[in-house]
Amino acid sequence: MTPVPADQLSVRGFQELIEHVYGAKDRGRGLAGTFMWFAEEVGELARALKKKSPDRDNLHEEFADVFAWLATLASIAEIDLAEAAVKKYGRGCPRCSAAPCACEEKSRFITP
Amino acid sequence: MTPVPADQLSVRGFQELIEHVYGAKDRGRGLAGTFMWFAEEVGELARALKKKSPDRDNLHEEFADVFAWLATLASIAEIDLAEAAVKKYGRGCPRCSAAPCACEEKSRFITP
Repeated sequence: MTPVPADQLSVRGFQELIEHVYGAKDRGRGLAGTFMWFAEEVGELARALKKKSPDRDNLHEEFADVFAWLATLASIAEIDLAEAAVKKYGRGCPRCSAAPCACEEKSRFITP
Repeated sequence: MTPVPADQLSVRGFQELIEHVYGAKDRGRGLAGTFMWFAEEVGELARALKKKSPDRDNLHEEFADVFAWLATLASIAEIDLAEAAVKKYGRGCPRCSAAPCACEEKSRFITP
């Protein structure tokens, strides 16, 4: 299997790749079981992100894993991730319709 | 802002779109605060997926949201999601090198 160059990887292409590699197995595990694997990877991403000295190889791995499990969940739910992404974000912020987003955010985490 | 057709949406293009729309705001919130928003969206995806009668519009929204927050986290961590995805999954399963994956999985969730 020859990898596509990163700058040519389409969202649909990645979902199809993951479906080809893991689809049968993931459907066998079912939606709930597969969600637990996805959640486990989200936890591993948190662990990789909160390291004092980030390990870039590890970060690459964990982002790839969360993305792959998200793609698999979308396939099980029969959702086209590319269509979903374009529908919601293709025109900029879906709330304020601006790009960059101009929505006000009141959060303890925003630094003014 | 004109949306690209779904079949032409690249992984890098989506990450750049989200960076353009939300980058400044997300960096202002910081990594930890942004991770909490991401986690909240993961919870909303779980809620959408476990509905007895799935609402497809809602599923599209929640998958798009998790994907967008994942892209933003990658941007904050200076990780190119497309590069990460190709590096790990571009040649099939990174463990068994097969496509479809032939790794054995011992899990209570696998149905034989």
